Amino acid sequence: MDAEGLSTDELFCFLQAKRNEDFSYSHILSSMCTTPHPVAVQAHNLFMETNLGDPGLFPGTATLEDRLIRWFADLYHEPSAGGCTTSGGTESNIQVLRFCKKTKNVKEPNIIVPASAHFSFEKACGMMDIEMRVVPVDEQYRMKTDAAGELIDKNTCCIVGVAGTTEYGMTDPIPALGKLAEQEGVHLHVDAAFGGYVLPFLDDAPPFDFSVPGVGSIAVDPHKMGLSTIPSGVLMVRDERVFCNLLVETPYLTTKQAYSLTGTRPGASVAAAYAVMAYLGRKGMKALVTGCMENTRRMIEGMEAFGVHRKVTPDVNVATFEHVSVPSPWVVSYTRKGDLRIVCMPHVTRDVVEAFLSDFGESYVSHIS
Amino acid sequence: MDAEGLSTDELFCFLQAKRNEDFSYSHILSSMCTTPHPVAVQAHNLFMETNLGDPGLFPGTATLEDRLIRWFADLYHEPSAGGCTTSGGTESNIQVLRFCKKTKNVKEPNIIVPASAHFSFEKACGMMDIEMRVVPVDEQYRMKTDAAGELIDKNTCCIVGVAGTTEYGMTDPIPALGKLAEQEGVHLHVDAAFGGYVLPFLDDAPPFDFSVPGVGSIAVDPHKMGLSTIPSGVLMVRDERVFCNLLVETPYLTTKQAYSLTGTRPGASVAAAYAVMAYLGRKGMKALVTGCMENTRRMIEGMEAFGVHRKVTPDVNVATFEHVSVPSPWVVSYTRKGDLRIVCMPHVTRDVVEAFLSDFGESYVSHIS
Repeated sequence: MDAEGLSTDELFCFLQAKRNEDFSYSHILSSMCTTPHPVAVQAHNLFMETNLGDPGLFPGTATLEDRLIRWFADLYHEPSAGGCTTSGGTESNIQVLRFCKKTKNVKEPNIIVPASAHFSFEKACGMMDIEMRVVPVDEQYRMKTDAAGELIDKNTCCIVGVAGTTEYGMTDPIPALGKLAEQEGVHLHVDAAFGGYVLPFLDDAPPFDFSVPGVGSIAVDPHKMGLSTIPSGVLMVRDERVFCNLLVETPYLTTKQAYSLTGTRPGASVAAAYAVMAYLGRKGMKALVTGCMENTRRMIEGMEAFGVHRKVTPDVNVATFEHVSVPSPWVVSYTRKGDLRIVCMPHVTRDVVEAFLSDFGESYVSHIS
Repeated sequence: MDAEGLSTDELFCFLQAKRNEDFSYSHILSSMCTTPHPVAVQAHNLFMETNLGDPGLFPGTATLEDRLIRWFADLYHEPSAGGCTTSGGTESNIQVLRFCKKTKNVKEPNIIVPASAHFSFEKACGMMDIEMRVVPVDEQYRMKTDAAGELIDKNTCCIVGVAGTTEYGMTDPIPALGKLAEQEGVHLHVDAAFGGYVLPFLDDAPPFDFSVPGVGSIAVDPHKMGLSTIPSGVLMVRDERVFCNLLVETPYLTTKQAYSLTGTRPGASVAAAYAVMAYLGRKGMKALVTGCMENTRRMIEGMEAFGVHRKVTPDVNVATFEHVSVPSPWVVSYTRKGDLRIVCMPHVTRDVVEAFLSDFGESYVSHIS
């Protein structure tokens, strides 16, 4: 930090130069984030200074959070469900483990997660001294329910199922896990950080929400397929009384108790998430998701036409293939098993898919011939 | 969520109406947040879509985070210090307790906090099964070092001192706590979420940073006195190797390990924090902070002229008084002990102070006469 400040010209010349060093989403095929929708950006700016950590100062913004939660309650088929916004899937998952651990109240709690679970569970368990029992997945990369059942014991405080896994885009057998959860009296949390904005808008999607008996909570991220600004997460719970386990006194704020994990938290990204859903409506969301799924299928067909085989037919817009390299400037990622992984986010339009396939084809054919 | 979406006109008419229901900062005297600086908003927009949860995709943005950390290392007098950005003080404090608990590695860890500590420590301790030992404060609302020493035992993994307490704006005796920490071999964390942007720019401020032997980490929030956008926190550590205790594998991202608590996290508010410091420079920050302290003094003098006594002379721009009511539309807060609390943030200009004093004087004099 220099003694003298920069002029705005000097400052933004420098910042623009740094911004130009970033990759453009136009060639990013590896991310579950995307360019936010223009109405999200506009709403974010309108609510830029709002702080939902002190909601009594921002009652209008707090109303948007309430309305967003009500929309998800309807979308997930449990109108009486409760919820709150968070900074994203990790915080949502931490919040669930916080109340599960407190409710169970045993000395050595454990949770059951699929091998495909997001790494946020490892962080959360490490922090909270919860044993993480990892269930293998089947050849379709879905959690093996029988194996899950075998790992449950009297210290199990939560079963986690994933709806739209980060690596392979698969959904765990939520109805079977729900039965298991009810039978064992254990909370079932569905990590739908990605799939929670996809599956409700697909015909014949696997069931994952509160319509499935036994599902106790669902995490979904507006800053992924919800086209909202970062950071933006939503945690829905079938019975909002679970949040009472998380209350702390918040003297000197307008509300005297809070159950959120963070203190100061943005109203801007909540307004942005609300704006996208209000603007697109169910029809717009369905069109968006349908387009992404079509592009995913085209990506799979295109790659298979080159002889590069899919690993699995995904439930959401994540395509995976046997390990092959891709030419620059395309940015892809690889799973822990080394498989090629491409996320067909909304910025991965049909034109982008075709451009990638064309570039890939040229480099691949020259490579193998 | 309706089937059909709204037009942008309908949407923003509704959103503006909701925004109008919020209080304006012009009458908020209770918040440690404020209207962000215009360069913060402009930088936020330039980096709106960036995700530091996957820094390899955004190397330019990641550079800004590095440069921000280096500035704080200099400002806090330890050029070799490490650090990272967070979503705010709560996450920073959680991260510290995560590595302290892991490093100490005892069965029943405890931490020592002053009675004036922020409620985030209660959340963090509850979540991590850490006993929170609360040290009383003296008549100046500063932690009693002797009492702290008596509470330390072989299971103590962290001592917390506060630089600029939320309620009374006081700074704990950090040099004495540093000696205690060194003597006992315990980590000393300084929660400077508020004071970390104030004390470095004041003459004769109480010492709180890495120039004090024994200080191991410092939390500071750009979204408070740093005039940045929400959410924006910084955690500085004297020895960045402590972060190694927090690493988890992050397959399918551009970096293969991460120690952050959250996953996806905004680059926008990091760029915003950077922009404000680059634009104001040390001189601009000093002018800002000096103005807030002058207004705090004027607020105290003005209230005492009405016969309303200060509770303490604060180290930072938080003024507290014996309990009295204030007329609407002014928004103030009260401490746990019931004292009136006014935070003289940058939006509380000299004109605002005078307007408040005038309104208060009228209502108070008519009330007591």
